[in-house]
Amino acid sequence: MKRPPGISISRLAIYLRFLEEYLKEQGLKSTINSAQLARYLDMHPHQIRKDLSYFGKFGERGVGYHVQELKDNIAKILGLNRKWNLCLCGAGNLGSALCAYKGFKEINLNIVALFDSDVRKIGKYIQGIKVYSPKTIVSTVKELKIDMAIIAVPLENAQTIADKLIASGIRAILNFAPVKLNVPGHVKLRNADLSIELVNLAHFLSSP
Amino acid sequence: MKRPPGISISRLAIYLRFLEEYLKEQGLKSTINSAQLARYLDMHPHQIRKDLSYFGKFGERGVGYHVQELKDNIAKILGLNRKWNLCLCGAGNLGSALCAYKGFKEINLNIVALFDSDVRKIGKYIQGIKVYSPKTIVSTVKELKIDMAIIAVPLENAQTIADKLIASGIRAILNFAPVKLNVPGHVKLRNADLSIELVNLAHFLSSP
Repeated sequence: MKRPPGISISRLAIYLRFLEEYLKEQGLKSTINSAQLARYLDMHPHQIRKDLSYFGKFGERGVGYHVQELKDNIAKILGLNRKWNLCLCGAGNLGSALCAYKGFKEINLNIVALFDSDVRKIGKYIQGIKVYSPKTIVSTVKELKIDMAIIAVPLENAQTIADKLIASGIRAILNFAPVKLNVPGHVKLRNADLSIELVNLAHFLSSP
Repeated sequence: MKRPPGISISRLAIYLRFLEEYLKEQGLKSTINSAQLARYLDMHPHQIRKDLSYFGKFGERGVGYHVQELKDNIAKILGLNRKWNLCLCGAGNLGSALCAYKGFKEINLNIVALFDSDVRKIGKYIQGIKVYSPKTIVSTVKELKIDMAIIAVPLENAQTIADKLIASGIRAILNFAPVKLNVPGHVKLRNADLSIELVNLAHFLSSP
């Protein structure tokens, strides 16, 4: 299933996240129309209608989208209609916080292994996830069929860890370390930037 | 200074972040052209040129933008040409990780106070930032002239903390707790979603 033209992945991800929440609150048979969605998401109704026109159809007038169906269609386009196995490198504060984050599992992203070089942590479980030595990255990634990796190690170790992940066949990495990583062309690297949302708030406060 | 039409805050924030990094690497007198920027940011050169046409001018042909000047102009539009004082509510794993995050200070966002109800933490310092009792939110926010707040407490406490922050005069909140908060119309609330970048990776892996 190809992505409809003109819709960014980020916008699809935001719709999906909202529909997940809405389903939980309103139940499996709920419907929603574009005006309601626009209000919830603080977007323009025209934009929402245009984007959603690619997915399924409006029910009868006044009914709107079937939320479950809309959600399933968006998930399929995003590649989230199947489970993905993730590993998380770095079991420090950030790593532990990410392990506890419930938003990943809800969209079929499962952290199945932690890697940390601290011998006191290796073999233990954090939030039910086993901690492995980084020395075992290549074998563990293969054994647990890990698809993508999150890097949450100190910046001075990030490149070494990235290299090991790539050597083990990982093609998708989310990097939280504040350093630019070098990866080969076949690997997709995204850098998490925790300050983008705060920039938005600063702009709000400084606007007259 | 008003925001140029058609440029989203997020895109400006991404340019700013990149230019900060570039300045650190290349020095104060560095220049960059739109084609180089496009390559670094994995964007279309036309989009970059159009966005940046609002800021300063190209130097002589073949020279490009003066990075420092461009960065200063973007920071001004974003309201980041002044310092902002932040408080962080919740000194758990996520809160501690956010305290250690260097990306905030670089763009003039300073965490000046932590709030946590754990009596073993109150009065202590984490990453040089003092931990206060949530009971003192109203007075501490006033005393330290705090402009915005980050919520990183467990979801069941998030609304109570938000209410206290708002009572103390805070008008801008970034919420990491996985719960929808109710805030009055004059308060700007952003919800951090740590999974958006992972969705991007899942889409990449599932594309042929």
